[in-house]
Amino acid sequence: MEVTNKYIAIKAQIEGAPEESDFEVKTEHLFLSVKPGSNDIIIKNLYISIDPYQLNRMKTVSVSRSYTVGLTPGEVIDAFGVGKVIASGNSEFEKGDYVAGVISWGEYSISQGFMLRKLDPMGLPLSYHVGLLGISGLTAYAGFFEVCKPNKGEKVFVSAASGSIGNLVGQYAKQLGCYVVGCAGSTKKVNLLKEKLGFDEAFNYKEATDLDATLQRYFPDGIDIYFDNVGAEMLEAAVSNMNLRGRVAVCGAISEYTSAGKRAAPDMLNVIYKRISIQGFLVGDYMSLFPEFVSTTIDHIQRGKMHVLEDVSCGVETIPSAFAGLFRGYNVGKKIVKVSDE
Amino acid sequence: MEVTNKYIAIKAQIEGAPEESDFEVKTEHLFLSVKPGSNDIIIKNLYISIDPYQLNRMKTVSVSRSYTVGLTPGEVIDAFGVGKVIASGNSEFEKGDYVAGVISWGEYSISQGFMLRKLDPMGLPLSYHVGLLGISGLTAYAGFFEVCKPNKGEKVFVSAASGSIGNLVGQYAKQLGCYVVGCAGSTKKVNLLKEKLGFDEAFNYKEATDLDATLQRYFPDGIDIYFDNVGAEMLEAAVSNMNLRGRVAVCGAISEYTSAGKRAAPDMLNVIYKRISIQGFLVGDYMSLFPEFVSTTIDHIQRGKMHVLEDVSCGVETIPSAFAGLFRGYNVGKKIVKVSDE
Repeated sequence: MEVTNKYIAIKAQIEGAPEESDFEVKTEHLFLSVKPGSNDIIIKNLYISIDPYQLNRMKTVSVSRSYTVGLTPGEVIDAFGVGKVIASGNSEFEKGDYVAGVISWGEYSISQGFMLRKLDPMGLPLSYHVGLLGISGLTAYAGFFEVCKPNKGEKVFVSAASGSIGNLVGQYAKQLGCYVVGCAGSTKKVNLLKEKLGFDEAFNYKEATDLDATLQRYFPDGIDIYFDNVGAEMLEAAVSNMNLRGRVAVCGAISEYTSAGKRAAPDMLNVIYKRISIQGFLVGDYMSLFPEFVSTTIDHIQRGKMHVLEDVSCGVETIPSAFAGLFRGYNVGKKIVKVSDE
Repeated sequence: MEVTNKYIAIKAQIEGAPEESDFEVKTEHLFLSVKPGSNDIIIKNLYISIDPYQLNRMKTVSVSRSYTVGLTPGEVIDAFGVGKVIASGNSEFEKGDYVAGVISWGEYSISQGFMLRKLDPMGLPLSYHVGLLGISGLTAYAGFFEVCKPNKGEKVFVSAASGSIGNLVGQYAKQLGCYVVGCAGSTKKVNLLKEKLGFDEAFNYKEATDLDATLQRYFPDGIDIYFDNVGAEMLEAAVSNMNLRGRVAVCGAISEYTSAGKRAAPDMLNVIYKRISIQGFLVGDYMSLFPEFVSTTIDHIQRGKMHVLEDVSCGVETIPSAFAGLFRGYNVGKKIVKVSDE
């Protein structure tokens, strides 16, 4: 059977904040069968993860292009997601299997099995396997437990706290018995953090005229751990308010992605005298934690101790607006595009 | 016996780079005997360590003032050094003992034994126990081996490499079998690093118009370890040139001490994608390494594998110019003031 596969591509390399108009919907003809001897897996995409880091792959020049594969205008964009196998020449995957891993910003993906695994939905919504139990979830789990090395009772600050990773970091920290404060970009998000997700405190950074003083107010006893998703001024203010042997896990720097010159300039005297560590990390180094992460997280969810925050839009055509919206703070929780029903 | 003790004090809190005129020579009358029942130790100061970090104690407002004791105009300034006990009410110290530890910027010190230990010169010049085998040496040793966690063959960059700590870090790194490049502020220092201390390469940062490109030239395979003594632009350029899992040990930030607004703004995308760690440290956390550090270092020296770089001036009156000179790059190696012959 032949279908028309719609997919999203960049028109050109992107500098600054992405706009919907930077993307185009393209089509290609696709046979939904594999040639004899081929190793291909043809996947019907169901849910696609929409993540800020992809912007770094779309730039002309970026450090990340040396460490990930840069994206080419007009070409298919690979991304994490969940799908269903339609046809397979690969002995590890069969027609009808659910899969999670690297698929694409389109209706169908062709995979050779790279970074793809069979998925047992375990009775949970498929979308959970994109965010909560996917790369965002593992990033939060590994970043918090392995990089921050938290102790019960420590004071934890999370930026972009209603985002896909931040909301989970805050919830994991609460489960461990930490004092947790998050910042986000609207009153609605702030209320959500405090009322639904159990954060001890939250504030709207757009209303904070003096970040340093704001953090001092929310952390009268200082910050032990800062889980950084945003970079720039927030990182500086967090370092100023850190305690002895404070730890910063640098997960993302979304405020810096869209403006090349924007940088955090933390006071190194603080770093020295307070023996602060600032540690960048990527989730790919922690894949071995996956089974432990999944079982712990499902347990928290099933006992009602953690909540799932998803922001789902429907149809492959919504990918550009979903992606551009990440940089405008439009998403609440994990941004997912549902491409198709099964 | 009563003497006149000359000591150096700040006239007022200091902002910016210190000048000789910021200090004054003061005098006080001192009895060289201890009252019955007193725990005091009266020390004749012999060699005093002159260190840049002291400037952070002289400022009006500084983060370090919350973590060390700020200095008061007109008062005695405590500092690391070596002296000889003249009189003691403390059972652990006797007249005639050599001591190393916290003494003062003066001719005599009165101590209650805090941060003071009996010193066995081990047949070495007393000045060695101020720099090489003192706080500078332990800072270099602990910072390099414990914070940087180096491996043989790794590429090491050291700033302020002809300074008291930098020159030792480079020499320890060479002993371990690392590739070592240092930067310093004059041709004379650069030649010294390469010709006497065995650095693989060295460059004059004042002649480098593009630090990023300069480091790229000296580290075609990237930097694994950056031992930072200076902060600001050099830290940024080092982060840009670091390898995967690169480590920055933040020991000092001398270029930032004299101008409050000067900061390093390293690219956080580099920090994330390359999993870089930036770790501040203070030597006080590593005192337990002291015996190992001393025996290792003496062994290197006695086998001619390491060289001692000292810059000694004589007389307590030279302390202000010695100290101010640190911020102008006048010292070559460890700056020490010899206060007195025994």
